[in-house]
Amino acid sequence: MIFRQLFDVDSSTYTYLIADEITREALFIDAVKNRLNTYLQLLRELDVKLIKAIDTHVHADHVTALGDLRDATGCITLMGEQSSAPCVNERFADGDMIGIGALKLQAMYTPGHTDDSYSFYLQADNRGYVFTGDTLLIRGSGRTDFQSGSADAQYDSLFNKLLTLPENTVVYPGHDYKGWTSSSIGEEKHHNPRLQVKNKEAYIELMNNLKLPHPQLMDIAVPANQACGKS
Amino acid sequence: MIFRQLFDVDSSTYTYLIADEITREALFIDAVKNRLNTYLQLLRELDVKLIKAIDTHVHADHVTALGDLRDATGCITLMGEQSSAPCVNERFADGDMIGIGALKLQAMYTPGHTDDSYSFYLQADNRGYVFTGDTLLIRGSGRTDFQSGSADAQYDSLFNKLLTLPENTVVYPGHDYKGWTSSSIGEEKHHNPRLQVKNKEAYIELMNNLKLPHPQLMDIAVPANQACGKS
Repeated sequence: MIFRQLFDVDSSTYTYLIADEITREALFIDAVKNRLNTYLQLLRELDVKLIKAIDTHVHADHVTALGDLRDATGCITLMGEQSSAPCVNERFADGDMIGIGALKLQAMYTPGHTDDSYSFYLQADNRGYVFTGDTLLIRGSGRTDFQSGSADAQYDSLFNKLLTLPENTVVYPGHDYKGWTSSSIGEEKHHNPRLQVKNKEAYIELMNNLKLPHPQLMDIAVPANQACGKS
Repeated sequence: MIFRQLFDVDSSTYTYLIADEITREALFIDAVKNRLNTYLQLLRELDVKLIKAIDTHVHADHVTALGDLRDATGCITLMGEQSSAPCVNERFADGDMIGIGALKLQAMYTPGHTDDSYSFYLQADNRGYVFTGDTLLIRGSGRTDFQSGSADAQYDSLFNKLLTLPENTVVYPGHDYKGWTSSSIGEEKHHNPRLQVKNKEAYIELMNNLKLPHPQLMDIAVPANQACGKS
């Protein structure tokens, strides 16, 4: 596997490039529009061909590069079947396998931050990796107070889906604001303060009392992302 | 191996935590003073004991956490034998092995950015990793115009030392300003624009004509770092 984590400092977004070392087929997760040139440079220099670009959900804090990547490379764009983005070529559902050469990402429907949030599980090179978008963050979780968010649904996504993965699974989140680049399921299970709640009711109460400001870019980013960043 | 890359967004510095999964002994490379609390949290939550903290060189762009880590954990602090930091407990020389449990970092003297710059090579989990400080950056190299820097010496460090490592060696730099988190020796050999020069004279000319501004923090950071960040 060829693997790269990339950081967009403006929105604190992590983007991931995954490629099959043999077939040279590649996939991006959560690419950011204003980083397009970097992505194209990296694809060229790694000598890989982008075949798929996927977003974990319709983002409210940055504009996606899905449409631009499709225009520039001819790749297919994908989002979850619950997504409100009519622009994508294909849709995946819970449990679907997304192939990149011999590699397979398993789509896990993990709603809560939004009603179209997915995580992706990958086994490669004798390790398990999960790309958790804004569902599970390092020592945190994505807010649930807009875009059909639901703390109730997020509790189930976290406790009944993500935390059932093996403890040594590497966690690669969609954002980080404190300089952490990765974690593990075991570490989050034991040390993520939001996952130490007694029950679902306590989680809902915690999430409903965060009193977070309205995301600055939301009114621009959501409509743009529903058009794959091409509006 | 337990491994973590951490990012200090203020100085665009990468810090690395390496630990032996069995003995739970840990080492930091290039820790940043204002991130101390994060490091102590991570050590506690990963259940590892810091035994060594090393800097690749006396930094001019951020203040080191060496002294604070030693105070907080009782770890040993180390720098190269050429370093002007009398505060460290021990010094390493070219070719020395720095142990952390069963893991061994090989010190590679790679002067040029400063006259005390080292890189560290590690083989673990069937891969090679090199921590290049400010000698080799992703698609760049560290400036050579202050702190006894030398483009001549850096050319030798790059071409006669770092680029002789296997091409699939993972490169972890001391900084990145464009959101890249890692690279490989092969990728840098073929695509780093500064490594495409014809000969040493061309490299020296390139480095001597960068016309970079004076580092903002240099007059504060260098004396502070000579005292392990405790001045």
